[in-house]
Amino acid sequence: MGGTRSRVDNRSGIGRGFAVLEAFTPEQPVMTLSEVARRAGLPLTTAHRLTSELCATGALERDRGGSYRVGLRLWEIASLAPRGLPLREVALPFLEDLYVLTHENIQLGVREGHDAVIIERIAGRRAVGVINRVGRRFTLHASGIGLVLLAYAPEEVQDAVLASPLRRFTKYTVTDPDELRSNLTDIRRDGFAVSERQVTIDTRSVAAPVTNSRDDVIASLSIVSRFAGPSAERLSLAVRAAALGTSRAVAAASRGD
Amino acid sequence: MGGTRSRVDNRSGIGRGFAVLEAFTPEQPVMTLSEVARRAGLPLTTAHRLTSELCATGALERDRGGSYRVGLRLWEIASLAPRGLPLREVALPFLEDLYVLTHENIQLGVREGHDAVIIERIAGRRAVGVINRVGRRFTLHASGIGLVLLAYAPEEVQDAVLASPLRRFTKYTVTDPDELRSNLTDIRRDGFAVSERQVTIDTRSVAAPVTNSRDDVIASLSIVSRFAGPSAERLSLAVRAAALGTSRAVAAASRGD
Repeated sequence: MGGTRSRVDNRSGIGRGFAVLEAFTPEQPVMTLSEVARRAGLPLTTAHRLTSELCATGALERDRGGSYRVGLRLWEIASLAPRGLPLREVALPFLEDLYVLTHENIQLGVREGHDAVIIERIAGRRAVGVINRVGRRFTLHASGIGLVLLAYAPEEVQDAVLASPLRRFTKYTVTDPDELRSNLTDIRRDGFAVSERQVTIDTRSVAAPVTNSRDDVIASLSIVSRFAGPSAERLSLAVRAAALGTSRAVAAASRGD
Repeated sequence: MGGTRSRVDNRSGIGRGFAVLEAFTPEQPVMTLSEVARRAGLPLTTAHRLTSELCATGALERDRGGSYRVGLRLWEIASLAPRGLPLREVALPFLEDLYVLTHENIQLGVREGHDAVIIERIAGRRAVGVINRVGRRFTLHASGIGLVLLAYAPEEVQDAVLASPLRRFTKYTVTDPDELRSNLTDIRRDGFAVSERQVTIDTRSVAAPVTNSRDDVIASLSIVSRFAGPSAERLSLAVRAAALGTSRAVAAASRGD
């Protein structure tokens, strides 16, 4: 994202408008004008003009105190992103089935560049706590969803991720590129991924790929449970069945277009 | 807004970029360049430049066939809109409780101008079919959620809606402004709304207001069930309890900020 931000100054109104929108983060979803200007790297007067224009379109809103936040109008348009809500709508019944059967955390994610993004999460209230949130990004190399998305990513994406520093979340996180590459081969052979204690020390995730009608892997769904909880053997068939069901529903939805 | 009008260049950049985004609709979420140009009312060359810029930011994506769709990057940013996903995350456990108890359609909506927008929906698989979808807009004067949001809207919003033509969805839809205004008074007195057969002939919705820590009504949640199904008496206490629980959670979440 930093790269995007440094490029935008040479760009059009759209580029700078987008830089203002990108200044908003999960950590700072509501900001004053000077915070927006600072985070977007813009002079105050420019930030003022851009935020006014974005408010006029509804992309931003001001709250009672005059602070800025992302507007519901932007959310309405963004809800049309096929890889967001529409995918989620198709997958939801299968996610709900998994939840009803296991009462664990159920997640659906897609790859965006070298990251995974969570599209939907059903959080078991008594299930193990997980750090993800809908709309959040995370790395591809450690979680079940991330490993599936990486295993089926184009070769150039795999090479780039394997060549980059692989963050060690726990002592079990695989950070050796050769070992990781071998694991990706296993995931493609098995048709599912198991990540044990690689993201947090007390969790296991089991994930399987979701495909479209051309057999491209477009998403991954997973169960995240306690490491001391149900075995990967017990969970993997259910996860794979839900992923197959979702894949079939995705193909049916695209035929309906 | 008047002050920005003289700065034509950037204003038109963001404004026209937004016009391109607004060309995408639930009915047409994927479009060719010429469809985008036609729907946004732009010359083909301008549309080409704007879509290229929007693709560079990630606000749009191109699919394999070269058609345009709303990008996941826009969805990521829009997921920060406080009235969208964050509100939905706070409300979800209460919506799930209602679903588990009733197996009916459970909806959460907010007011955007003179419309309601659905933020979340849990659709009972054997429940009555409803026309709404997450991200969809609908009128305020007929559904349970709409009536609650209208009943607690500022006076000028109520006056504008009551002065506009009120669409008759069924023969039971209240389209007389005086009768509707009287119904709004009842809703504020009772603390919930019942809409029977006003949107579709076979449905009943029962809705209650969700407030923030300042007691502003910021959303409404509802159960939509068959008219021949459970009575409004049976549903209303559960809906109101879920709305109160959500309101308390909203207040707690804002204290945490």
